[in-house]
Amino acid sequence: MLPTIEWKGDSVVMIDQRKLPAAEIYVRCRTATEVARAIKTMVIRGAPAIGVAAAMGIALGMRRSKATGTKQFVTEFQKTCDLMAGTRPTAVNLFWAIDRMKRVFAEAAQAGASVEELKNRLEAEAHGIHDEDVASCRAMGAHGATLVPDTARILTHCNAGALATAGYGTALGVIRAAAEGGKKVAVLADETRPFLQGARLTAWELVKDGIDTTVITDNMAGALMRLGHVDLVVVGADRIAANGDTANKVGTYSVAVLAREHGIPFYVAAPISTVDLQTPDGSGIPIEERNDREVTHVGTSRLTPEGARIRNPAFDVTPAKYITAIITERGIARPPFAESLARLFA
Amino acid sequence: MLPTIEWKGDSVVMIDQRKLPAAEIYVRCRTATEVARAIKTMVIRGAPAIGVAAAMGIALGMRRSKATGTKQFVTEFQKTCDLMAGTRPTAVNLFWAIDRMKRVFAEAAQAGASVEELKNRLEAEAHGIHDEDVASCRAMGAHGATLVPDTARILTHCNAGALATAGYGTALGVIRAAAEGGKKVAVLADETRPFLQGARLTAWELVKDGIDTTVITDNMAGALMRLGHVDLVVVGADRIAANGDTANKVGTYSVAVLAREHGIPFYVAAPISTVDLQTPDGSGIPIEERNDREVTHVGTSRLTPEGARIRNPAFDVTPAKYITAIITERGIARPPFAESLARLFA
Repeated sequence: MLPTIEWKGDSVVMIDQRKLPAAEIYVRCRTATEVARAIKTMVIRGAPAIGVAAAMGIALGMRRSKATGTKQFVTEFQKTCDLMAGTRPTAVNLFWAIDRMKRVFAEAAQAGASVEELKNRLEAEAHGIHDEDVASCRAMGAHGATLVPDTARILTHCNAGALATAGYGTALGVIRAAAEGGKKVAVLADETRPFLQGARLTAWELVKDGIDTTVITDNMAGALMRLGHVDLVVVGADRIAANGDTANKVGTYSVAVLAREHGIPFYVAAPISTVDLQTPDGSGIPIEERNDREVTHVGTSRLTPEGARIRNPAFDVTPAKYITAIITERGIARPPFAESLARLFA
Repeated sequence: MLPTIEWKGDSVVMIDQRKLPAAEIYVRCRTATEVARAIKTMVIRGAPAIGVAAAMGIALGMRRSKATGTKQFVTEFQKTCDLMAGTRPTAVNLFWAIDRMKRVFAEAAQAGASVEELKNRLEAEAHGIHDEDVASCRAMGAHGATLVPDTARILTHCNAGALATAGYGTALGVIRAAAEGGKKVAVLADETRPFLQGARLTAWELVKDGIDTTVITDNMAGALMRLGHVDLVVVGADRIAANGDTANKVGTYSVAVLAREHGIPFYVAAPISTVDLQTPDGSGIPIEERNDREVTHVGTSRLTPEGARIRNPAFDVTPAKYITAIITERGIARPPFAESLARLFA
């Protein structure tokens, strides 16, 4: 299992996902601010992993607090939560994790916990979120594997793998579970411009696991579908609205349209913490626009001329009608998603 | 007008399209072998430009021949034509240009031309192909501009510009003609992985012409269509089968499917020399698979891990049913293309 993020002594350690696969470098965050920066700059990314990082960041920040009274500690806690909430807007797991930390904090505070007890409670909750995430991925894998034929060529976009979670992965968890169950799977990994999570991270993870992996540029997916080289698609999600509309890495929508055009099943794998019942449909999901440099440069190579404008929306929304099923740790939701997702929460 | 390719004294000079936009470097080819290598390694690319380069390469090769008798000259001519034909398989303009050179050679030889006269005839024909290509682009532009609304956000894929032709461009010729006619156009340029013709070449050309240009990664096109940011699509072509099926840069097919999904007109602009009536439909078009390195690296940055397989089909086929109209120098063909294209040849 890859160590995406770990609590080590008085710090949170993450593998630097910007440097993979060229180098395996670990970043040690000693403060909440350092964790927030790591999320913002994509040292760590992937909706579930961001949730875990935010929880650990809050626990770490509060562990280091010098507050002696509860009142000052509450103020610092609120500021630390705000710091985490300001890192990235789209993945709802971030806000879900922060809310969960707030809830346990409020409960413990109300029960009269001391500052030290509050620190312990927050750290325990962050560990809980981490461990539950791995368990969720395993459960998603078990459910999702039932949807994979005995021999399957699976296309995935971006990285919804161990690196995007506390371990095992969502979409890649489904692929791993199918492979572990003896199914013959071959993966087509969209390289996923501009940040190249597919080429760099998905391929790295899967090759390490001995799974047959072919990297393609994003614009090849349609052509390969037309040639009959794709049996199913499985991707992760950054936020799933109550009606099933799904925000995920930019390009997911195109893959979904192409899958439907070719009669190929299109699955989304995500934990329940990615489902946002407060957002009725995809139009309410904020889409982060990231900096131009991700598009204009790869490494030190500048690709575009001066004077050209750039767009860099990091995510897009796939309307529910293109989604065959949503795989969660609690089971598989099928259309109509408004009902099937609500049932999973019941 | 950009000097894509020029005959200068005893050599053929091309701007090195692998180096743009970082550097404007010119490559001087002194032999047919050097021209063939320039085509193969994509110093020059784009179906019409490849046709012009092949014709000039043949004329240059034969100009340098030391043959004294016609018989030896004929043998060398055949070898030079074979050399050019072996460079790239998909763009039919290459074979069209070679056939045209063969035809004038055969006619002149039959009429008893001397070796020196044959050399002059070949060089004149190569110049003719070059100049006609520019004229074709201008005519395509005039026809195509009638399809562009007074205010239009136009998406294009790859580079079907001055750099892909002897000048002015096919798809970009349509955009240029619309802009010159006073229409307010803004261009969305797909970066076009792996060779990045959109980011590097289309953006460079259009910014030089003062046309509002925004570069996006290929996987953003669908999302921006869904948000209503694209009014029409225009692309070039490498080979158009008799029924209208069109081979063009990989990713074109995805754009076409997405355009239809959103009710956006999808136009192909190409000279008649790109239409291959000998190929009944797209299944007969050979698709070049290029080397892995174009996908695995950008500049000196390696993107993919060791052990991952790579696919690199350079083109894909868009079935005729996704194409709204084909813009040629002889007019605009509309479905059913089998008839409308045949009529343009009549």
